[in-house]
Amino acid sequence: MPSTNQITLNAPLDMHLHLRDGEMLENIAKESARTFSAAIVMPNLVPPVSTKEEVTAYKTRIMNAVGSETFTPYMTLFFKPGYDKAFLASVKDDITAIKLYPAGITTNSEGGVSGFDVEELRPALDAMAELDIPLCVHGETNGFVMDREAEFVSIYEKLASAFPKLKIIMEHITTKASVDALDRFENLYATITIHHLLITLDDVAGGMLQPHLFCKPIAKRPEDREALLKMALAGHPKVMFGSDSAPHPKHAKEACGCAAGVFTAPIALQLLTELFEKNSAPLENLQAFVSGNAQKIYTIKVPQKTVILEKKAFHVPADYKGVVPMYAGETLAYSIKEVRHG
Amino acid sequence: MPSTNQITLNAPLDMHLHLRDGEMLENIAKESARTFSAAIVMPNLVPPVSTKEEVTAYKTRIMNAVGSETFTPYMTLFFKPGYDKAFLASVKDDITAIKLYPAGITTNSEGGVSGFDVEELRPALDAMAELDIPLCVHGETNGFVMDREAEFVSIYEKLASAFPKLKIIMEHITTKASVDALDRFENLYATITIHHLLITLDDVAGGMLQPHLFCKPIAKRPEDREALLKMALAGHPKVMFGSDSAPHPKHAKEACGCAAGVFTAPIALQLLTELFEKNSAPLENLQAFVSGNAQKIYTIKVPQKTVILEKKAFHVPADYKGVVPMYAGETLAYSIKEVRHG
Repeated sequence: MPSTNQITLNAPLDMHLHLRDGEMLENIAKESARTFSAAIVMPNLVPPVSTKEEVTAYKTRIMNAVGSETFTPYMTLFFKPGYDKAFLASVKDDITAIKLYPAGITTNSEGGVSGFDVEELRPALDAMAELDIPLCVHGETNGFVMDREAEFVSIYEKLASAFPKLKIIMEHITTKASVDALDRFENLYATITIHHLLITLDDVAGGMLQPHLFCKPIAKRPEDREALLKMALAGHPKVMFGSDSAPHPKHAKEACGCAAGVFTAPIALQLLTELFEKNSAPLENLQAFVSGNAQKIYTIKVPQKTVILEKKAFHVPADYKGVVPMYAGETLAYSIKEVRHG
Repeated sequence: MPSTNQITLNAPLDMHLHLRDGEMLENIAKESARTFSAAIVMPNLVPPVSTKEEVTAYKTRIMNAVGSETFTPYMTLFFKPGYDKAFLASVKDDITAIKLYPAGITTNSEGGVSGFDVEELRPALDAMAELDIPLCVHGETNGFVMDREAEFVSIYEKLASAFPKLKIIMEHITTKASVDALDRFENLYATITIHHLLITLDDVAGGMLQPHLFCKPIAKRPEDREALLKMALAGHPKVMFGSDSAPHPKHAKEACGCAAGVFTAPIALQLLTELFEKNSAPLENLQAFVSGNAQKIYTIKVPQKTVILEKKAFHVPADYKGVVPMYAGETLAYSIKEVRHG
């Protein structure tokens, strides 16, 4: 992307988003709805979203929080091995994907999967493949923090082989090992966050410790970031933007024992634009990364929204209603100039 | 070390200690002086301790803060390439070692060495070798946080080769790469902290982010910790205990952008005793690790002090005058029963 004063993005999609619930949902949902056409909304509430009623009720709460913005929350269920075909068929029209968490691996994932026995998972995953419901996966083992994702690649491979018709989305990938796996299996796809394109562990713990850059999976090595960046800048058809924007109240991030998650929803498009420009990547690749690829992978029709960004300093607020964003207090190169609906 | 109700340590030494200055020094010096016979005191004040007058004045301030405890602060200078033989000879009796910091690598190290040109360093290091002043080194490059120490090993090797009569202490080593280097050069030695024997990066950033376990060098991988533990438990003659106990006020540790350092001075001996017992290591190895090896390496005579620890729960305070220790609020297996002087 050459240096430019203004760029236009069509129907930006955030394919991995945490909107939480209650007051937090009320406070932050608009920050995504303002600039994104739609988003895949994660189901890790307490308790996790796992019934048709819970999905539809949560969607209603989201729409109420979003207000008048044009925005579609693509709903997800929290994967349970016990889901059967009848249940999945009954809920198919209410959801866009199902999210699988290994047990205890991140915020509110205690009820997740603790073994990855193919035969135990077969009824649910066969039914999902048949109904064309993608499986989104938080791919980390319980191993050493820098190895968890790389260790999980063998589980991705096992699932991808055993369920070749199931679309498997490797969520928020952070390693070269995951990038390499994408090429080996036709049915593996991935989301990549903006923060994992920008930071490594050095930014989290190389100077002072930076709680607002602490997330799961943790940011990895420079060569990992390079591998992710190469895929995103190329607009590689198997990768999609998913912010994993994960709000926590300021006190939970800056406390001793800080919660995992980076809040990027309100600055993601500005950062992506700056990143693609800096790396001279074509605008069409950014468009593919932030919308086109996801539309093809998920076979979804998305609400129209046109976002115009201009090269004008944007001063990132210290917080959005008590949630501290990435780069709080710093200045970004691009601002949102205008959002056109319809 | 078999399970035991009581053990006795003779003249425990902390071969790497930060005592700071002013109010902090007043507040925490006694925590070391109570149970240690002596300690190598780091010179990274603001400005760094780099003249005879500064060394003697700092020593006086330390002795005043220590009060009536029997305790010897082994003083150090902040290494500068410009130190010449006349200066070093004049200050030799006031110091026990000289500490080299690469520039900007940790707390108050801005004035450190930024290149490692052997010929530039030769006058100072030749003089130190001749005067038998050990060189203590914070061995990290400016590279990726998990690689900094391993990358520095080649600099250790260059210095050890170029100055074979200089005693070089690899301070607070955290990697298998450093352990391996110890065997390759007769004049390389090392200190190891208690926290690097106990934790890995998993403990800092594998669950919630733990600012009180954040230090430089950062805790590394499980196989690194294993390599360190093997050396310590064996009482290997080239390794010495050095706590790197580094107090920061609570607000500086729990703030956004937390300072590096773990405060272990008041609990180090209890933790070491528990660790050696758990691993069934002989008491004589603990004695070697915590005193005997350092006496031989530094050829020092140390003040007598006998510390008796008993197997009795010790509840770690939430803070020591505003400084949060490692394991604050937790319970350790051993307590200090008695300290005998003379």
